[in-house]
Amino acid sequence: MQTAGNVHSSDDWVRDSKGTAYGFDAFLERITAFHGYPAPGLVIGAKMVDLALHAMPSGCLFDAIAETGHCLPDAIQMLTPCTAGNGWLKVMDLGRFALALYDKYNGDGVRVFIHTHKVAAWKEIDSWFFKRKPKAEQDSDALLREIQRAGEKILQMETIRVQPRLMVKDSVGTRGICPQCGESYPLKHGSACRACQGSSPYATA
Amino acid sequence: MQTAGNVHSSDDWVRDSKGTAYGFDAFLERITAFHGYPAPGLVIGAKMVDLALHAMPSGCLFDAIAETGHCLPDAIQMLTPCTAGNGWLKVMDLGRFALALYDKYNGDGVRVFIHTHKVAAWKEIDSWFFKRKPKAEQDSDALLREIQRAGEKILQMETIRVQPRLMVKDSVGTRGICPQCGESYPLKHGSACRACQGSSPYATA
Repeated sequence: MQTAGNVHSSDDWVRDSKGTAYGFDAFLERITAFHGYPAPGLVIGAKMVDLALHAMPSGCLFDAIAETGHCLPDAIQMLTPCTAGNGWLKVMDLGRFALALYDKYNGDGVRVFIHTHKVAAWKEIDSWFFKRKPKAEQDSDALLREIQRAGEKILQMETIRVQPRLMVKDSVGTRGICPQCGESYPLKHGSACRACQGSSPYATA
Repeated sequence: MQTAGNVHSSDDWVRDSKGTAYGFDAFLERITAFHGYPAPGLVIGAKMVDLALHAMPSGCLFDAIAETGHCLPDAIQMLTPCTAGNGWLKVMDLGRFALALYDKYNGDGVRVFIHTHKVAAWKEIDSWFFKRKPKAEQDSDALLREIQRAGEKILQMETIRVQPRLMVKDSVGTRGICPQCGESYPLKHGSACRACQGSSPYATA
């Protein structure tokens, strides 16, 4: 799915961490396959990851932070080796539409975010980003085309250093059997597993 | 990558939510591509998702819960439309090696977990699951082959109902500009964004 073989797009939209390039429409298809629908936030998020990847030193082993659970985790998962399940991606509920890639050994990296001043020049994106009109009134196609035209013009990048406390590997530690549910759990969670301590997502029978 | 075309495996290991089947070795390759390495927990996790998918009513629109951030989120993401970034997958830090799929409208579903009694019969899996020997002493190949032989024999499934409070769609609500960092954030988080309220993952310059 290299751009060269894609007749629908003239330019690359993104490159993943292995250097494989995707045209805009080809990447929309990949988004739909993974995420379920061509979410505007994921199209922009992919460009954010692309920008960050370009800024990282070649050969650097990096981890990732998504500052929101909306769309950005998937942009990171689609373009880098960092996933929600391998420990290399941290999803935080900070509510900012921003992500960071950083050297897993020294914490140095880059952060990319949507710049509120820059976005003001793009009517459809601004309206979507600040939810200025109901979803039903949005022109999805016009929005996607504006995102394509804007590219990285709505983004800002800065260097960051991740706090050392976040760079400690999260170890499960010794596992034991929960005396209440009988399942295995990390003993560091206490004398019973967290579900049995009251955090179960399930209604009792 | 249907099993029929894969000479390395004789049986399907898993089917995804669209019905596409993968042989054991073919799925190991997919795991390595997405997750970075053939993690035993993800191989088992895929079988757990497969079991849960089979138990869900045909045509049911479902959401997913991973009770740990280790491996299981990726098993769900690889085999269902639920991802960390589209809101259909909740990753919880309960520390139990368990996952659930549930009807997104009424919360009814199934939960699959590793059964501690059943696992005792499988030396390599038991040793890996309870960390009875250091990682360096593990025989990865023997472990993977035992996982393949054990299949669903180490798993248990139960019906669950998800608590109504978890089925409310998480809405960002109105967005405003944080007076400190100047970025957009959900106003429901308070008078400044959470990062500026002290939850920033970055060290200050």
